[in-house]
Amino acid sequence: MLIVQKYGGSSLQDADRIRQIAARVLKTQRSGHEVVVVCSAMGDSSDELIDLAEEVSGNRPAREMDMLLTSGERVSNALMAMAVHDLGGSARSLSGAQAGIFTDAGHGAAGIVEVAPVRVREVLARGAVALVAGFQGLCRETGDITTLGRGGSDVTAVALAAALDADVCEIYTDVDGVFSADPRVVAGARLLKTVSSTDMLEMAATGAKVLMPRCVEYARRHGVEICVRSSFTDGPGTLVSRTPPPAGTGPRVTGVTHTGAMELVTVADPAAGPAAGTRFSVLLAEVSTLLAEARTPADMVQAVATPAGGEVAFTVPAADAPRTVGLLERHRDRLGHGPVRRLSGFGRVSVVGAGHPGAAGVAAALAGAGIGVRLTAATGLRVSALCAADRLHDAVRALHSACDLDTATEAVVHAGTGR
Amino acid sequence: MLIVQKYGGSSLQDADRIRQIAARVLKTQRSGHEVVVVCSAMGDSSDELIDLAEEVSGNRPAREMDMLLTSGERVSNALMAMAVHDLGGSARSLSGAQAGIFTDAGHGAAGIVEVAPVRVREVLARGAVALVAGFQGLCRETGDITTLGRGGSDVTAVALAAALDADVCEIYTDVDGVFSADPRVVAGARLLKTVSSTDMLEMAATGAKVLMPRCVEYARRHGVEICVRSSFTDGPGTLVSRTPPPAGTGPRVTGVTHTGAMELVTVADPAAGPAAGTRFSVLLAEVSTLLAEARTPADMVQAVATPAGGEVAFTVPAADAPRTVGLLERHRDRLGHGPVRRLSGFGRVSVVGAGHPGAAGVAAALAGAGIGVRLTAATGLRVSALCAADRLHDAVRALHSACDLDTATEAVVHAGTGR
Repeated sequence: MLIVQKYGGSSLQDADRIRQIAARVLKTQRSGHEVVVVCSAMGDSSDELIDLAEEVSGNRPAREMDMLLTSGERVSNALMAMAVHDLGGSARSLSGAQAGIFTDAGHGAAGIVEVAPVRVREVLARGAVALVAGFQGLCRETGDITTLGRGGSDVTAVALAAALDADVCEIYTDVDGVFSADPRVVAGARLLKTVSSTDMLEMAATGAKVLMPRCVEYARRHGVEICVRSSFTDGPGTLVSRTPPPAGTGPRVTGVTHTGAMELVTVADPAAGPAAGTRFSVLLAEVSTLLAEARTPADMVQAVATPAGGEVAFTVPAADAPRTVGLLERHRDRLGHGPVRRLSGFGRVSVVGAGHPGAAGVAAALAGAGIGVRLTAATGLRVSALCAADRLHDAVRALHSACDLDTATEAVVHAGTGR
Repeated sequence: MLIVQKYGGSSLQDADRIRQIAARVLKTQRSGHEVVVVCSAMGDSSDELIDLAEEVSGNRPAREMDMLLTSGERVSNALMAMAVHDLGGSARSLSGAQAGIFTDAGHGAAGIVEVAPVRVREVLARGAVALVAGFQGLCRETGDITTLGRGGSDVTAVALAAALDADVCEIYTDVDGVFSADPRVVAGARLLKTVSSTDMLEMAATGAKVLMPRCVEYARRHGVEICVRSSFTDGPGTLVSRTPPPAGTGPRVTGVTHTGAMELVTVADPAAGPAAGTRFSVLLAEVSTLLAEARTPADMVQAVATPAGGEVAFTVPAADAPRTVGLLERHRDRLGHGPVRRLSGFGRVSVVGAGHPGAAGVAAALAGAGIGVRLTAATGLRVSALCAADRLHDAVRALHSACDLDTATEAVVHAGTGR
């Protein structure tokens, strides 16, 4: 088999951990596989570089930030090569450019335009482990080093797995896999053995931190199977499968996710008079289009009837609220909307899976737990509800239980975070 | 003018220093010059990477060490670009490969085979400062990142100055320039306004730490004028001139250098019988050739008559002594020499300049100071003497004074070291 393994920063936080990972990599290779390893930067080293940059300058061009930050993955990658050699194995470290990761010129969050892993194949053909610096690529038009943005090392691993037609892409992290809810919130959260890529995409988009949506999307588009595993244990992890669940199992609920620090934004619709009922103007379509084109992370966009007439409402992470409201204000003349209001202090809970109980079912379950709901929104794949931030964890527990996801066994959680 | 400036690690040890250097760079540019800047890694960051590598692995392939260590210069370089932007200027950082520094595959101490600074010229043509990561290059045959070895950032600067036909190559360091002796040893050492490249080469080879011999040699071969200056002051520094001193000034002494921790190695010559006098066998030539071909830093190689017959004697830094003696032992069958002896505890003092007083003059001056001499050796450009290590500084002071180099003004010395 050809296996791509990606290790996050928490798996590489010091010399000891690097040596442990090197041993794991060699063990995989010695059981008869070809192994490509993608390394993130060590522990908090990227954050330290960002702090240093902020100390040096209030004006940090994205091109230079990319030159700066890509050094972190080169360090961990070279150290990993040395650790493998020390254990009697053979390995070669490659930068993103050397591994043939070619991107557009979008510094800070570049998109991959081509993967040409010629040198990776050469290293494998020699019987060595191919080590690739994650998170980075080269823009051939400008000749500049780029980074792939948050979760970029996962994208590197998936892109290499696709280009190499790997049998599996293993993403090693500090948790045992994908859980039916955040195990720090729900003691009875269950480790999922498999999850479909469509459900995984919804979970990643609504709060499951173990994988970034971009990575899941890339994997789905290129038919790559991802296995999320812990680098601290030998557990089987979670397989993010490209095949849908077997026929006959029926629609199920996969998990409950949550996101804190959400704001509710409302845009008054002057065209919807007091008697308008649900016959809203074109404002909903126009606002949706505007928000999507500006790539705001707006969610749950919908028209709501109010005593005064109507409004368009949506949620947005608190950090993105000022930018989003500014966008609407700038387009007020064209859209002709009324006042824009921001309401903070919310959290969003989501039930993911085609078998979800719908807005009414969620509202009922939360009401049963004494939790008020400010807004709901449902698609075929998930239903989300907006509640007070200080009741968010209660809401997660209530829905996890209501959807029969609780297991008797408590999940084992390890400390740390990965990139 | 086109000016290449190189800043060492001690000039870039923290955010404040980087901002100060950025201001200096911009000041140079704004007074009407095109500026190319070569940055070393920040402060001790390279040593920290080496420590980390040693912690991770007892088997550190040179290729991987190069991948590891080159990250340091990329960091300082990118930070410098940000600092320049913060001050309202424009700058672009380039890796060694991007700057067109092409080398052979000699990882750890690669030789430059071509400099093609196309992108450096592009950056300058836009009116921006071109920042180049020092110490590193690319081997085109293998596609691998290489390093240029100790003093490599100086070599980068000189190589770029040559390829760009720069008007001057300024090497910024933590001392005011090249002194007639180490100012920490000789209070009256004088700052040299100019020094010929031939004398500078001798000084660098015999203990002046401000420039590495390779760098001076590269500059001389390519007709580059180096100016050694302090990044802490606005002093004029020392110009290492490609032109010899003006006619009529006559031969002079330029400076007194010293190297501690030297060993004396003697190789008995069985072919030189008790009556051989100075008619030594071919051993001297054979030993010289062997030492040169193995690139040992052997110095003062000579045949010496002894009561027992004769021997070949030379000096070598203590750190290189075991390897050097091992080399001779391995070739004993072919060379047919007698016992090889190592004697430690010596220092070497050298007087550089065509007007040096010769072996007899040096021996007399040292005898006058009560310092015994174990070996002397002279060329047209310098004379060296081997004395007890604990008298080495006294020897430097005695010769500096005897050669009329003392000045009344004490030199100002700054702390720190540079790469």
